[in-house]
Order: sequence, then C-alpha cells, then structure tokens
Amino acid sequence: MTRLQGLAASRGSALGRARVRRPHVQDTGEKRIAAAAVEQELQRLHRATDAARAEMRELRTRLQGALPAEVGEFLDLHAMLLDDPELLTALDELVRSKRYSAGYALRIQRDRLAQVFEGMEDAYLKSRLDDLDHVIGRIQSFLHKRPASAKGMAGEILVCENVAPSELAQLQSQGVVGIISSAGSVLSHSAILARSLHMPLVVGASAILNKVSDGDVLILDGSSGEIVVDPAPADLRQYRARQRELAREQRQLGRLRGKPTRTLDGAEITLLANAESQEDVAQAHALGARGLGLYRTEFLFLQGNRLPDEEEQFRVYRDTVLGMSGLPVTIRTLDLGADKADRTGLVVGSEENPALGLRGVRLSLAHPKVSDTQLRAILRASGYGPVRILIPMVSMREEILTVRRRLSRLAAILRNDGHEVAENIPIGAMIEVPAAAIALECFIDQVDFLSIGTNDLVQYLLAADRNNDAVAELYSPLHPAVLRLLWQVMDTAQRHATPVAVCGEIAGDSSMTPLLLALGLTEFSLHPATLLEVRRAIREVDLAALRAQAPQLLAARDRRGIERWIAGTARD
Amino acid sequence: MTRLQGLAASRGSALGRARVRRPHVQDTGEKRIAAAAVEQELQRLHRATDAARAEMRELRTRLQGALPAEVGEFLDLHAMLLDDPELLTALDELVRSKRYSAGYALRIQRDRLAQVFEGMEDAYLKSRLDDLDHVIGRIQSFLHKRPASAKGMAGEILVCENVAPSELAQLQSQGVVGIISSAGSVLSHSAILARSLHMPLVVGASAILNKVSDGDVLILDGSSGEIVVDPAPADLRQYRARQRELAREQRQLGRLRGKPTRTLDGAEITLLANAESQEDVAQAHALGARGLGLYRTEFLFLQGNRLPDEEEQFRVYRDTVLGMSGLPVTIRTLDLGADKADRTGLVVGSEENPALGLRGVRLSLAHPKVSDTQLRAILRASGYGPVRILIPMVSMREEILTVRRRLSRLAAILRNDGHEVAENIPIGAMIEVPAAAIALECFIDQVDFLSIGTNDLVQYLLAADRNNDAVAELYSPLHPAVLRLLWQVMDTAQRHATPVAVCGEIAGDSSMTPLLLALGLTEFSLHPATLLEVRRAIREVDLAALRAQAPQLLAARDRRGIERWIAGTARD
Repeated sequence: MTRLQGLAASRGSALGRARVRRPHVQDTGEKRIAAAAVEQELQRLHRATDAARAEMRELRTRLQGALPAEVGEFLDLHAMLLDDPELLTALDELVRSKRYSAGYALRIQRDRLAQVFEGMEDAYLKSRLDDLDHVIGRIQSFLHKRPASAKGMAGEILVCENVAPSELAQLQSQGVVGIISSAGSVLSHSAILARSLHMPLVVGASAILNKVSDGDVLILDGSSGEIVVDPAPADLRQYRARQRELAREQRQLGRLRGKPTRTLDGAEITLLANAESQEDVAQAHALGARGLGLYRTEFLFLQGNRLPDEEEQFRVYRDTVLGMSGLPVTIRTLDLGADKADRTGLVVGSEENPALGLRGVRLSLAHPKVSDTQLRAILRASGYGPVRILIPMVSMREEILTVRRRLSRLAAILRNDGHEVAENIPIGAMIEVPAAAIALECFIDQVDFLSIGTNDLVQYLLAADRNNDAVAELYSPLHPAVLRLLWQVMDTAQRHATPVAVCGEIAGDSSMTPLLLALGLTEFSLHPATLLEVRRAIREVDLAALRAQAPQLLAARDRRGIERWIAGTARD
Repeated sequence: MTRLQGLAASRGSALGRARVRRPHVQDTGEKRIAAAAVEQELQRLHRATDAARAEMRELRTRLQGALPAEVGEFLDLHAMLLDDPELLTALDELVRSKRYSAGYALRIQRDRLAQVFEGMEDAYLKSRLDDLDHVIGRIQSFLHKRPASAKGMAGEILVCENVAPSELAQLQSQGVVGIISSAGSVLSHSAILARSLHMPLVVGASAILNKVSDGDVLILDGSSGEIVVDPAPADLRQYRARQRELAREQRQLGRLRGKPTRTLDGAEITLLANAESQEDVAQAHALGARGLGLYRTEFLFLQGNRLPDEEEQFRVYRDTVLGMSGLPVTIRTLDLGADKADRTGLVVGSEENPALGLRGVRLSLAHPKVSDTQLRAILRASGYGPVRILIPMVSMREEILTVRRRLSRLAAILRNDGHEVAENIPIGAMIEVPAAAIALECFIDQVDFLSIGTNDLVQYLLAADRNNDAVAELYSPLHPAVLRLLWQVMDTAQRHATPVAVCGEIAGDSSMTPLLLALGLTEFSLHPATLLEVRRAIREVDLAALRAQAPQLLAARDRRGIERWIAGTARD
C-alpha cells in the first residue's frame, strides 16, 4: 500500500483499476507498403480520418450546452484540424509517393508540422501542438482498429500526464470513474469541465506515472487529492464509508429541490442560473432557480461557418424565455474574443494578448450590424416574457450609453414594424474589467443591474491568465484586493439600490458561499449543477453573524489570512 | 493645397518632400537564371544577407540604451530571423535547384512562410509576418544595390502605411525629417520611440497614400496631427513662425538645466531619471536629475545567447552607481516575460497572454539561481554608492517577503566573503498589477518606497493591451478608475510616509504634469529627454491651487471630463 498526494481538482472519490497512458506512446516506426497496396492503404487512412471526424462532430453535438463556453472552442479547433486540406493532401501524398504506411505517414506529417511550430517559438505553439497530437492520436487509434470510444474502460481510473478538455466527456461515457494526472492545474479548463461533469480528478500528482502500472487497484479522493495504490482493508472500509456519506449527502441535497433559499436568520437569498442549453434551462427551472442570471449566446456564433441571422437567434432566445415561464432571463450579448476559434470571420485572431483585446462589447461596437442583429432578436424575444440584457466587458460609461441608444432606436423600428417589444427592458453591465469596478460610481446611474464576472475580474486584477499553469498559484479569488473590490462594488450598488449578482465560478463553489454572503452578496448566478449545494450552504448560516465578521475578512493581509477566516466560519 | 488630418503621435513639425512607400512594393516577378550563373547568384544572395545582418547588428549596438527596453527586442528578433538556418538553406535550395533569381527566391520563401503563419490563425501571426517582411525587405534592398542606409532621404518626409520601431532610428540617420503613416496608433512602440528620438510623427492619416505622390511638398505638425499638401505661402509663413517658436522654446528649456524643480508656491518636486545606458546616465546627471528612479536591467539578458554572469552584471551596475556620483540609483530586478524575444532559455515564450503570464518577479522567483546572481551583483554594487532595489510585477505580500529573505541571506554570504555591501538597502515595489495598488495596505509595511508603473497598470485596469491597435481608443490613463487608484495609492503611501514615484510614460508627458501634481505626486521618474519640459511645467504651476482642484478632477465621470479639467488648468 502506497499513498501519494496530488491536488484536489474535482470532488468525489473513486475506486478502480489503473489504466496508465504514458506520454508519446504513438511512436509508429517506419513502415513501407507495396505499390499494389497503396489504394487500400489510402482507403484505410480515409476511413480512420472520417471516423475521427464523425466522432468529433458527435461529441460536439452531444456536449452542446453541457460545456462551459470556453471549453467548447477546443472541440471546434479539433474539427477544423480534421478538415484542413493541407494536412489531408500531405498525408495522401506520403502514402502515394513514398509508399509509407498510413500510421507512419501520420507520424511524419505530425513531426513536420511540429517542427514548423517549434521553429517559430510561437506563443500558441504549445497548445496548438497538443491539439495536433490529440487529433493525430484519434486518427491513429481508429487506424489500428482500437477506437477508444468502443474500448471499454468501465470502472477504470485513467492515470496520465495530462487530460485534454475535449476527451473528458468521452472518457466518462467509456465508463472511466476517475482521473489522475501527473501535471495540470486545478484551475485549468479540464478541471473546470471535470467539476461540471462530476468526474473525480486529482492533478499534479507528479510521481504517479512512476508508481502505478496498468491494473493496479487505486483509490482517489478528489476532495483531498489523496491517492492510495493497492489499498489495505482499512482503506477500503474508509472508502465505502466515504461513498455512503456522499450518497447520503446527495439524497439530502435532493430534498432541497424547490425549497426556499433562506439563511438561518430568515434572509432570502436569490439563486439564479448560468445557462447555455435547453437542458440547463430545464434543470434551472426544476431546481427552483429564480431566473437565468447569465444566458450565454456565444455558442450560436461558434457552431457554423457563418453568423446566425436574426430569425435563428430570435427563436433560440424566445424558446429560452418560454422555458423559464415567466421568470426573468438575462441574455448576455456576444462575448467573443480572439481567444475563441470562430469561423465567422468576426474575430481576427491575431492578437498578442487576446484577453486584453477586442472582445465583449468592444467587438460588438466594432461590428454594429452584427450587434444590431443580436439586439433585434433579443428585443423581439422580450415580447414572450421578462428579458434583461447584460453587456460584457464594459469599461466605461460611453459604452453603455451607446448600447442604450441603439436599443431604443431598434425597439422603435421593431414596434413600427408591428413586433411586440417589452417596455423598459433592464440593461445591466458585467463587472469584470477592473476599471469598471473601481469607477462604478461613474456609470451606475445608467444601469438597472450588475453582474460581477469574477473569473475575468480576478485574472485582470492579478495580471494572471487563468488558463496559464505557470501562474496558476497566483490566480486566486482569495486575494485581499479581490475581496476589497467586491465589497466596494456591492457597497456602491447597495447605496444606489442597484441589484448585483456574482456569476463567476466562485458563485457556484459552496466553500465560498459564507465569504460572499459576508461581503454583502444577495444574488448568486451559478451553473444548475451546483445550485442545491449552494442553497444548502446558505440555509446553514446566520447572515447577521457572517456580516458582523466582514471587517476581520477585509482586514486579512494575504491568502492565508482569508483561508483562516473561511476555516473559522466553517467551524462555527 | 490640401489639408489632411491624422493623429498627433510625436511632437515637432517638419517641412519636406514626400517619399511615398506603398505597401507590398517588393513584388519581385518570376525570374530564372542560367545554370552557369547559379554560383554567382548564390554569392549575390549571401552578400545581401550578410549586409542585412551586419546592418542589423550595427543598429542594435548603436541604439543600445537609446531605445525603450520594449523596443530593443524587435531588433533581436530580426537578427534571429537572419540567422535562421531553415530560412537560409531553403533560399539556397531555390536558387540552386529551381534556378530562381535571388530576388524571386526571397519572394517565394516569404510567401511559403507567410502561408504557414496564415494557415495557423495564430496570435503572433501578424507581428511575426511584419517582422519577416521587414527582414526580407532589407535583404531585397541590399540585393538590388540600393541599401536604404546609403540612399539619401535627407529632408524628406516618409509617407507609408506603417513604420516599424526597428527602422525609425535608421530613417532618422538617413535624414528623414518626419513620418506620416496611414495606419498605426499613438501608443504603439513606434510612436513611443519616435517621441524619444524627437522625430515628428503623424499616424492614422488614412487618406494619405491616395492623396500624396513622391516629391509632393508637405508640412506635418506632430503636435496637432495636421498635414498640408502643396502648402500655400501663408502655410509656409505659419510653419516658419512655428519653427521659430519651437527654437525659442528649446533655448528656454536649455536654461532650465540644473535649475531647481520648484512650483510657483515654492514646493520642491523630485525629478528622477529612467535609464538603461551610460548615455542616459550621463544625460540624467547633466540635467540635474536627483537620481535614477528606474534603471532597467533587461538589456543585459537580451543581448546574447547566454545569461550574463555575476561579474558582468556587477561591473555594469557598479559603473552606473559611479556614474551618478552619490545620487541614488534604483535598480529594477529583471522584468522579462514571454513577450520578449530572449535567447537565454529563461522565458518559455509559449503563453497565450504573455502580459498575464510568468513575468517580472514571478519569473525571478521561478528561477532562484538566475535571480540570486542578479541580486548578488546588485548587492556588490551597493558598496560603491547608494543603491535601491525595485521589484517589478509585485502582486502580493509574500513576493516581497521572499525577495527580502533572499537579500539578507545573500548579503550575509557576500560580507562573509569579504565584499562591501551597504546596510539597509531600500527595497521598493513596482505598483503595476491592479491588485497591488488596491491592496497596498497589506504590504506597505514591507517596502521602503514605491514606483507606479502606469503603462502596465493602465493596461490591466482597462483590460486593453497597449500594443494592440484594435483597443488603442480604450487604452488611456485618462479614465476615472486610473485617477482614483493613483490618488488612493498616493494617499496610502503618504499616510505611511512611504515615498512614491510614477515611472510610466505619463511622468514624462508635460501635459499630464498638472494632473499628477493635483493627485499628490511629488516624485517623477522619466526619460532624461523629457526632464527639462516637465521641470518647466512644474515651475509654471501653483501646487496649492492644483491640489485644491483635485476633487473636481476625481469627480470626472469620463475621459472628456478629465480632458476638460486638464484644459482648464492649462488656461489658468
């Protein structure tokens, strides 16, 4: 029995046999084929490529909506690589003229492209190489008649160097019960996705690949990061006890469906849902969300080769409004940037720092026609139920004024054309650019509500990319500056009687609930999957007592001080 | 006579004949050579490549120190491209086997590489393509026996689509008196460099390439952005009057050398210099700077293929300390990031958002050996005169504590080895990460001084990359959030009696001087070239009156409000 420690990336525990995936296993050696076999080999290659493409498409469709918006783009990128004519003709050429086996041709072409990337010392290099390897790997696996999706991994724990966001859902459907990676960060896209898929995940278990072989029995605990290899009877007993406890927890949570979200001292807290798909909407409604606090619209712009037209958008927005049957739906206008793989030509995609580039409302203002089409579709949907409009990446007063002016003009035109458009649609701003948070007083008179996007806000405040492992230690909402600014925003909003929600990851993290309540938050917008947990956390606290402890929280000088405060409230 | 309007990017006016450089003029047509001529053609090609390489090296050496740190890297990148074996052998191959002329081979190879870039939709794509085109263009120009450096452009005004930072100094040495570009932003590297070279520059004159032909007489005014084509007698009269005025201004400025920096009501303001080279140091000293407020050390790490050793760094730091003869020298520890082209292997260079990545103190903490070598060199230099140590990209208390611990340990070791190391060397933090500004109270007890890096601070606060033209409109220090945060930092620093300087671009912009004084700033750190102008601006204001107007300034709701305040103080 050996114990190893990794980082807890996605809750839940698992017991299963290890399936070890070592890095760079697709080292197909040189192999030539006979002239007569060329056509047959080309057919094999094409079948494998088609199978990989079909798999990718199916996965994309199946995951539509289940994915956080920022993860879906990876799948789109993979589909694009599989459609790249340069890649495909080069492969054919290698088989045809050099008589390489399909497998060897794949390897040669992979190495060629890798060399080009590496020669350029490029900023995207690493992530693009990973994507390329993933796609080539999928073709290889179909080529050798062992398509991973058919291969059962039921009850197994995948042990690997790293896991790509694009393979997580697939692994789950193959029956994988948990994942341990030697690298990776708890804030990566993979970790976020694992949490929303409820797949137990431990990352950063650096020794794991040396200590574990195929078939070893493992226990992983995604809450503590602990891994047990060859568990002793006592470990198994403990695991079963933990599983029973989790099951009881789930049952208890289930009883909170439709229950009020009220603290011990009787304060009502509003839980809204973040949603993208009809499933999200249905789930939000079923669990008793008070509305949608963040309905993302990017997926409409990322799924095809062209921009969605007004009619198409209108139908999606209208159905969402109808789906919430009278509860408010907050539709966020397009929040694309150059970090998304879009095929519509809207985003240029050549920015050195896309996170600091033309995104959100900036992109919308730069493309008035595209923006007007979306605003018209939203305005028309407002005839079917209460709609609110949320503007992303606001950094100054002028941006809100411009959107407001456009909306009035478009509403007048639509009414003139005989459409039903609601009066006084509430307009809100995302607070995610630090300048907007700091200078909120300068434009709060122009908004009807606010939504704090903590994911981006933290990234800008700390100047730490939340997808960059090298600064993963730095990226944390538990920084005194983040808490002070959140407090300041909520205080300003309260003085102006403007409703304010938090819609970032932390809103759905029940360990952060007491902290957010202490800072004055009364509206949470979160993924439906986490709604019941947060409701339970709210029902277990005394709001007045928490608020009384806010000064100590705001006085913390560093992360440890904040963590001590959180631990203190958990003990109480 | 025609008037055109562009954006004022670098002050000064110029009268001269137009030299129009249209985009993509190096369209060398297909040309094959005889088999017998191959070796001769290869020699031509190699001579041209060698000449371009020599030119680039010479330029790099000549400009060492004259360039803002962030511009030097472009030149290094160009030199790297010229040394790239893949590029060079591919060129030879095209001449040898396809019998292409050297010029056509260059074009083919350029197009090939461009296609690779474009196919990847890469984040760095655009800037890399520009660099490639610039390098290929230089080889082409040597190939056709018209090296631009030999070709006189004396008295001419360059009219172009865009001007690269790397060619600015060269253009100046060729006698170019001003530059007009149809694209570009006033905050680009080229614009910053033009200002420090005192080269008049108007950017964003979108119609210019259609309105102006080679040889047209032009007047450009780099302060107003106005361009006059075929000036009338009245325009010439006005130009001469303006020139006389500028000359008088220069004479007046000259008289301020060594004069005190004191407001009308007798308040002493401290002017420190930003420096990188011995020339900067000499100039700073001659003009009466009270010390170096920011001595950059990146150039030591960017000039070779290896990391500078302790002895090499020590000598440079010591000479700088000696050069300031007893005045304090603030040495900033290494501030590299993945956006810099470094050949030392220190920086990985594959970050999606390098501005939000592993840079500044984060990089130093990730490479303790490299950092210790630099800290030892700085500590040893402290034996020769007053030294202060400035830590870049600080975002939390722990980072300062770690650097402090290391410094004490290293100082003890050095003293033990018989080196002279000053006692109580002041340690300061750059305030450029928003979180550090907001949570300053959490670590101010651990620093002896502060330096506000407004260039980066503004970029993070507004989530707008300062080198991205697409968001150039957004990137501005004239945002209410920037002023409020500056005010808050200065207020906190004053309450803790901690000296605070501003060392970003705005410190050297005399139009911003009244604003900074009103917010409470008493220490400016700026490039020596702008020292006298800022001194004059300070000597012309009444500090008490300005401070009394701070509330109005802080109450401004938008950029226009702030601009009105500035205009108001200028009128008084």
